[in-house]
Amino acid sequence: MPDEPLEETLDPRDWEEMRTLGRRMVDDMVEYLRSVRDRPVWRPIPEETANRFREPLPRRPASAGDVYEAFRRDILPYPTGNIHPRFWGWVMGNGTVTAMFSEMLAAGVNLNQGGGAQAGSLVESAVIAWCTEMFGFPASASGLLVSGGSMANLVGLTVARNSRAGFDVRSEGVAASPHAMRFYASSEVHSSVRKALELLGVGSNALRLVPARTDYTIDLEKLKEMIREDRSRGLAPLCVIGCAGTVNTGATDPLDALADLCSAEGLWFHVDGAFGALAALSPGLRHIVKGLEKADSLAFDMHKWMYLPYEVGCTLVRDADAHRRSFALTPDYLEHTTRGIGGSDIWFSDYGVQLSRGFRALKVWMSIKEHGIEKFGRLIQQNVDQARYLEKLVRATPELELLAPVPLNIVCFRYVGRLSDEAAIDTLNRELLLRLHEGGMAAPSYTILDGKYALRVCNTNHRSRREDFDLLVREVLRLGQILSRA
Amino acid sequence: MPDEPLEETLDPRDWEEMRTLGRRMVDDMVEYLRSVRDRPVWRPIPEETANRFREPLPRRPASAGDVYEAFRRDILPYPTGNIHPRFWGWVMGNGTVTAMFSEMLAAGVNLNQGGGAQAGSLVESAVIAWCTEMFGFPASASGLLVSGGSMANLVGLTVARNSRAGFDVRSEGVAASPHAMRFYASSEVHSSVRKALELLGVGSNALRLVPARTDYTIDLEKLKEMIREDRSRGLAPLCVIGCAGTVNTGATDPLDALADLCSAEGLWFHVDGAFGALAALSPGLRHIVKGLEKADSLAFDMHKWMYLPYEVGCTLVRDADAHRRSFALTPDYLEHTTRGIGGSDIWFSDYGVQLSRGFRALKVWMSIKEHGIEKFGRLIQQNVDQARYLEKLVRATPELELLAPVPLNIVCFRYVGRLSDEAAIDTLNRELLLRLHEGGMAAPSYTILDGKYALRVCNTNHRSRREDFDLLVREVLRLGQILSRA
Repeated sequence: MPDEPLEETLDPRDWEEMRTLGRRMVDDMVEYLRSVRDRPVWRPIPEETANRFREPLPRRPASAGDVYEAFRRDILPYPTGNIHPRFWGWVMGNGTVTAMFSEMLAAGVNLNQGGGAQAGSLVESAVIAWCTEMFGFPASASGLLVSGGSMANLVGLTVARNSRAGFDVRSEGVAASPHAMRFYASSEVHSSVRKALELLGVGSNALRLVPARTDYTIDLEKLKEMIREDRSRGLAPLCVIGCAGTVNTGATDPLDALADLCSAEGLWFHVDGAFGALAALSPGLRHIVKGLEKADSLAFDMHKWMYLPYEVGCTLVRDADAHRRSFALTPDYLEHTTRGIGGSDIWFSDYGVQLSRGFRALKVWMSIKEHGIEKFGRLIQQNVDQARYLEKLVRATPELELLAPVPLNIVCFRYVGRLSDEAAIDTLNRELLLRLHEGGMAAPSYTILDGKYALRVCNTNHRSRREDFDLLVREVLRLGQILSRA
Repeated sequence: MPDEPLEETLDPRDWEEMRTLGRRMVDDMVEYLRSVRDRPVWRPIPEETANRFREPLPRRPASAGDVYEAFRRDILPYPTGNIHPRFWGWVMGNGTVTAMFSEMLAAGVNLNQGGGAQAGSLVESAVIAWCTEMFGFPASASGLLVSGGSMANLVGLTVARNSRAGFDVRSEGVAASPHAMRFYASSEVHSSVRKALELLGVGSNALRLVPARTDYTIDLEKLKEMIREDRSRGLAPLCVIGCAGTVNTGATDPLDALADLCSAEGLWFHVDGAFGALAALSPGLRHIVKGLEKADSLAFDMHKWMYLPYEVGCTLVRDADAHRRSFALTPDYLEHTTRGIGGSDIWFSDYGVQLSRGFRALKVWMSIKEHGIEKFGRLIQQNVDQARYLEKLVRATPELELLAPVPLNIVCFRYVGRLSDEAAIDTLNRELLLRLHEGGMAAPSYTILDGKYALRVCNTNHRSRREDFDLLVREVLRLGQILSRA
């Protein structure tokens, strides 16, 4: 073939065939999502399927069509299940069809969101500006889209550490601190905050856990006491982390009071609002997270309560300079220019850990434009209303016990029936949850509250309907009765 | 509409319409990539287009079709340009059609790669096993797919810090170290290593930069001297970072010798192989990175020299236990089970920063299965051959000056013509690069070598052909002559 170039490429030999395959994928995936309600929430992976993944490194090629068939056969039927209307485990979003398409478009243009003069810089800038508007942050605040809540907290806490330590932490390291740094959060704070402080080298001992009150919010008086005590011991209080929607029960700390306290004490105020921050989008819920807008840094996720597919979280930082000073590094080979591809003021890589960055901003931009932010607010309200509906069902059902208040979208409860032995109740509910998963009917997750094993329904699901919660309660009762007799 | 459910959802009202839109996107994107060679590498964004991104937070909905039109009009024509056959800037991959589709599939199943009993766990496990095979790591090694090289280095260096400090860094923080930690790397090491050490709280002063030799590799004798000196000063040498393919010139440190030194000195051996590590895939290049397989941790990217779209990098860690001990945290609400959705031994969230994780493993899995790993090896060799071809062109052209050896896929050169004044040559080449970008003909990037401004061609491009490098040289000469006369 004389016209064939000398070189190989990963581009398809037959573009038309590839186009046809892509169209088939669209058809299949749209149908897959349209019919998700008809399938079980989850099912275990057969051993035979699992074994097929244990092949050695493929050396020779296969057709794209065959590879896609392997995906359809071995992957598509065995997802985590969070796409399903009756998945309420951990904190996961469903994803949407538009955002699924956006991910294909993003991978196609494959631009590098480190920054520079390309359209993606404008898209992410727009999204960050929208986020400041959504949460009442000043327009001068900076922000960064990140992989999720863990990274969003890490970014916020890095800026806290670097800008409040009082010396050049980036060069000298935390060991140069004359006084040991201290961070404060309620005992209900998410584990990613601890992980961030471990990474940052301040150590998890620097995280002072303030006892939570019976409603699972931080005890403000205890917090003040601990700060006072630490100062008197020569330690260096540096930052308070407020929770907007705790992972266990959806509790929100008194953010307004925390903001005032931080301001008075000269402490950085970081809010972990992974899902709870989004309550700000609903006029009926906004009061719960009042004070959020005073945070120095705010972490939240769009792949949770904005229903987008993985991965997308965000950190907002009130003081854009402090944010940039915590991360910017410009070696020769990254020198910014005023013209050409590097000719831009926008360098997201100066605001976080990643240098090369993907175009996750696109799905956010397209989704907010398509649905309008008001619809997200209505859906969030809908999820809270559904949680309250479930709470009512639980309260009205003598066999069930509500284990925590329902301030937002999380309902923690258990089956008790006629049992009174705590250990037996725990054992029963543990088994009950596994049977729920295995039956494919519904997927709550679990937690421990005051030593009690709880079924935990966390509703960040745009596909759920009230009838789904009726069904959950019926199924819990059915299984509870079976297990009580066992 | 009595059959309409009470609740709203983000699902399409008209699934058929959405399917049609998705098919159009496939058609457009396949055509966009098929015809990429016919377009300029890059073009500036018109002010009118940029202004359209400055809209306030959209409150009301728009049709998905209209939003897609905005994407087509305002984003698609203005990418970074790394999809193009003549983009050789920084270190970026092109992406591929299959991987673009994979991203859509991944967002559709939207499974959470934190772990658990779902197919994605098996996919990422397979990919990690393949990576250990690719680089000659033991099968017992652990690994994690991450957002890219910066995160891959951060993960590796976290394990280095935590497992070699000699005390519980996670709890106590780095300040508890009796002796200041020291990390070593050549002065050519990538800035992400410095960024990682800043984040980890050891501080960039802990990074001892060892002078590079004239071939831009680390000076081994100087390294030994510095370690000895630091020990005698009571400091704590902890880790050596070897470079497999430096960002400036593609130099690779003597990894085998570094591995032996680390072993003798009891130091952690981390290799930053962002793109260079992939040379291991070609039998003709493998010798360059010999010693890589002895590293304690290895960071590399698949969105660079495996040509995949953003984002995907990887860290391998020889000691899987040390890896897990650096990151695992299991609060009540994440307690692992033996059955149900949480019933799995595979929890990637125990091996890195992220808890929720997207399905980036899918595009790697599908791409390796489709093309076979041997093809990636051939393409990498092809890129090196092309770089050598360009080197020959530069050497054969009196107006051009080669500024560094070409050990791999990077060629640094400049236009000199009849100029002899160094400042004038720098100024000319700076302008020349911007004109190259603005002309849309080719996109190298730039760096500074021994004080000299260099045009830097980094070839990780599966679409490039030899004729593209001919064209580059012709264009550089044309612009150089114009600018010399100015």
